[in-house]
Amino acid sequence: MRLSVSFLKERMNNIEDKEKTAASSNVKWHHATVTRARREALNSHSSVCLWFTGLSGAGKSTLAHAVEERLHVMKCRTFVFDGDNVRHGLCSNLGFSMEDRSENIRRIGEMTKLFIEAGVISLTAFISPFRRDRQKVRDLLAPDNFVEVYCRCPLEVCETRDVKGMYRRARAGEIRDFTGISSPYEEPENPEILVDTSAMPLEACVDVIVDYLVDKGYVER
Amino acid sequence: MRLSVSFLKERMNNIEDKEKTAASSNVKWHHATVTRARREALNSHSSVCLWFTGLSGAGKSTLAHAVEERLHVMKCRTFVFDGDNVRHGLCSNLGFSMEDRSENIRRIGEMTKLFIEAGVISLTAFISPFRRDRQKVRDLLAPDNFVEVYCRCPLEVCETRDVKGMYRRARAGEIRDFTGISSPYEEPENPEILVDTSAMPLEACVDVIVDYLVDKGYVER
Repeated sequence: MRLSVSFLKERMNNIEDKEKTAASSNVKWHHATVTRARREALNSHSSVCLWFTGLSGAGKSTLAHAVEERLHVMKCRTFVFDGDNVRHGLCSNLGFSMEDRSENIRRIGEMTKLFIEAGVISLTAFISPFRRDRQKVRDLLAPDNFVEVYCRCPLEVCETRDVKGMYRRARAGEIRDFTGISSPYEEPENPEILVDTSAMPLEACVDVIVDYLVDKGYVER
Repeated sequence: MRLSVSFLKERMNNIEDKEKTAASSNVKWHHATVTRARREALNSHSSVCLWFTGLSGAGKSTLAHAVEERLHVMKCRTFVFDGDNVRHGLCSNLGFSMEDRSENIRRIGEMTKLFIEAGVISLTAFISPFRRDRQKVRDLLAPDNFVEVYCRCPLEVCETRDVKGMYRRARAGEIRDFTGISSPYEEPENPEILVDTSAMPLEACVDVIVDYLVDKGYVER
């Protein structure tokens, strides 16, 4: 459930009063008493998943990190998941077959769910080419907890950028199942946010996303 | 790397100055600029993994939640991982064979690593019976990031508690590979913290753990 920051702040005082009572009466807790709502109250913002999707080279990771920077300065608790910290760790035993890609996205979705529960704004930057996999993550999370950010960028622009030389290798047949070349990318049909990274400067894209979070009451400026 | 809270607070001002400069000069970030150190500075505490281990019924989950309650009141960012939120989610496709148990602990370790990076004090409550698996998680994390909390409790006491009727079923042969009955529990050799949950009241155990975190400079009262 998403809560406006002002509402959270109002609740904070009530919660603090209860905490003092509980602490002083030597209550024995046997279950989870620290809830998402209490964590959000402590943080003064709501948690949510910003799910960046798009072709390799569309700027997902760059944009996610730039949004995180802006949110951190606004004192938000944030974390970016990308290939660097997931593919070498949690998903190190997965490859790039369709089955493994689905399991990869499933694990990321489950992990994101826990980060949201922990009160952290989670930014995920994965190609996540299949609509079905993205939908599964959306279904896993509560309504308003999944914000799909489609980083739209024409294939030819991504291919020209080709930062890691991956497109060249894919064209040469050296990489199998490469999204956009030898494996499909299914565009989001109704993403909450669409940014055209080939036409807009980075900071303008960041503005769009942060404005969305502020307008919807996830965070406060 | 563990940092004392006072050191973090000193650094906070420097970081804030840099943030203002960066924000105003319209810098374009292409890499992760929000680091663990900046998150810890924002939180005013260090992140760490408290790894609770012990027999079923030894009180790991109850203790982890009670410690979390205390830390939350101290305004720390926390999260408890246990069977409830991991076995049904991230590890829902794993069973209880020795191989699956190892993969279970591996995934929890990798996830914990990211939570620590995110600045969150992570409390894990799993039997984690094998020394080798716990050592792997310790090796995965930076020194001082893994605090092993051995919840020691005689098997007969755990069996008497038998909250979920699991020991009775294990004795009846209805559950295979049940730790303490038909599968070994390897005691920690040098845990950072040992609490005897059969002899000490819950709140006294919480005191031991919170005092440790304060003494070592992870958190501040």
